[in-house]
Amino acid sequence: MFKKITIIGLGLIGGSLGLAIKKKKLAKEVIGVSRRKSTIDYALEEGIADSVTLDLKKGVKDSDFIIITTPVLTIVSIAKMAAPFLKKGAILTDAGSTKVYIVDNIEKLDIGGAYFAGSHPIAGSEKSGVRSADVDLFKGAYCVVTKTRNSNLKALNKIKRFWTAIGMKVIEFSPEIHDRIFSRVSHLPHASSVSLVNAVGRDHLDLAAGGFRDSTRIASGEPALWQDIFFTNRKNLIKDIGALKKELSKIESALRSNNQSALRKILNKAKLIRDSL
Amino acid sequence: MFKKITIIGLGLIGGSLGLAIKKKKLAKEVIGVSRRKSTIDYALEEGIADSVTLDLKKGVKDSDFIIITTPVLTIVSIAKMAAPFLKKGAILTDAGSTKVYIVDNIEKLDIGGAYFAGSHPIAGSEKSGVRSADVDLFKGAYCVVTKTRNSNLKALNKIKRFWTAIGMKVIEFSPEIHDRIFSRVSHLPHASSVSLVNAVGRDHLDLAAGGFRDSTRIASGEPALWQDIFFTNRKNLIKDIGALKKELSKIESALRSNNQSALRKILNKAKLIRDSL
Repeated sequence: MFKKITIIGLGLIGGSLGLAIKKKKLAKEVIGVSRRKSTIDYALEEGIADSVTLDLKKGVKDSDFIIITTPVLTIVSIAKMAAPFLKKGAILTDAGSTKVYIVDNIEKLDIGGAYFAGSHPIAGSEKSGVRSADVDLFKGAYCVVTKTRNSNLKALNKIKRFWTAIGMKVIEFSPEIHDRIFSRVSHLPHASSVSLVNAVGRDHLDLAAGGFRDSTRIASGEPALWQDIFFTNRKNLIKDIGALKKELSKIESALRSNNQSALRKILNKAKLIRDSL
Repeated sequence: MFKKITIIGLGLIGGSLGLAIKKKKLAKEVIGVSRRKSTIDYALEEGIADSVTLDLKKGVKDSDFIIITTPVLTIVSIAKMAAPFLKKGAILTDAGSTKVYIVDNIEKLDIGGAYFAGSHPIAGSEKSGVRSADVDLFKGAYCVVTKTRNSNLKALNKIKRFWTAIGMKVIEFSPEIHDRIFSRVSHLPHASSVSLVNAVGRDHLDLAAGGFRDSTRIASGEPALWQDIFFTNRKNLIKDIGALKKELSKIESALRSNNQSALRKILNKAKLIRDSL
């Protein structure tokens, strides 16, 4: 599919992507770019990439397809640093969890004769780091690719074909629609899980059953990653946190006023929605 | 351990208990009491009980150990109906998820020469009904047994030995302490999960990743059961919902004021607590 693919950032996403590209033979050569010596050794041993370099320029200069898989804020600064070295016709994408901030900022850069469109493979876990890399991480999951009025359609289609070849179900949104949706189905659940853990605290946690464990698993996610995600989608998230507080207040007020039928309606509604998943 | 054990209510808990009692040979005879003909047939086929009756009086009159495993509010009314038929020296307990309401009300009843103490085996699932019965449901989990100034110590110890024999780790609390703790570690997570589902709604749920799925699994729980639990522990739950709303507001205000370090502290704190589980 490509001669050379470069993956910048070998964490859970970058590492898993390397494994999947190699397995599906989507490139003659996979180059990794990493900041850590220990990651380089591990990535080479595990066959995540054919070569790994600390040198961003060397990593991108002959590459046909470049994917930046670092945390959200870093994606933009790496794109800036890489821009002068991209070859003509190269395609650049990312794997960040928010899209407006990333796409707006990268579209403002001069990337010469290269093309960019944003991606968000909906895969991940509360684990992080290259040692959690999993060749099947993306299998069967959705990948959002973002289209704007600046998008080059040929490049956009190539990016879509890439994610499809990785095994994902590709879906196209504007960056704005993407961020609106993922504030609800991903960033709000994270905020909710974190708040629940902090409200419950440490005492008697050994008595918590599976319900608490499951509903707070994501609170173990990497704080640095989620800080970037929350801040680059803050307007949507503020709105959705408001909606969640309103729902909690509905339960509170049903309990205060001893309104059995109001509580029953709330519980029934949630069950109906959740069962449809 | 007992000659006759009676289980009143053959749902997930009652059914699983029957299977565990039979497997561990804790009684010569296990009698089930159920309201549904279809449950009776299923329970007999699966060896959940040696006999099952629709007749409460018949079910309890010669029994040494009676466990009521119905929803919380029903537990009290069944105890009331069964009271006149309990034999001298019989031990009565329950498996309800809140304890103050149940214990207060059953201790007010005249149960003749029988003894009562409350139990709460911390086991369950978002599934319900006898068809979900699982012989290993209780294995290794905690069971709270409640002690009050009215408790008969010999009977209390026998109840503790029973749950230990079932394979549970027994812990003793007052009903008040039980309800305080479980409002936090169980009822609040349920309220949170239900509120999250209702705030997110139906749109684009197919794009929700594992985080949303896990943190809302319990919202599929049986509304009738949770309605009773919420209302019989309403004072604690109202307080804890307030605490959760406050935690959500902290994230909201960090986002509004662009306070990166405040958000980082919140995320770090939650990760530290959750990782300790």
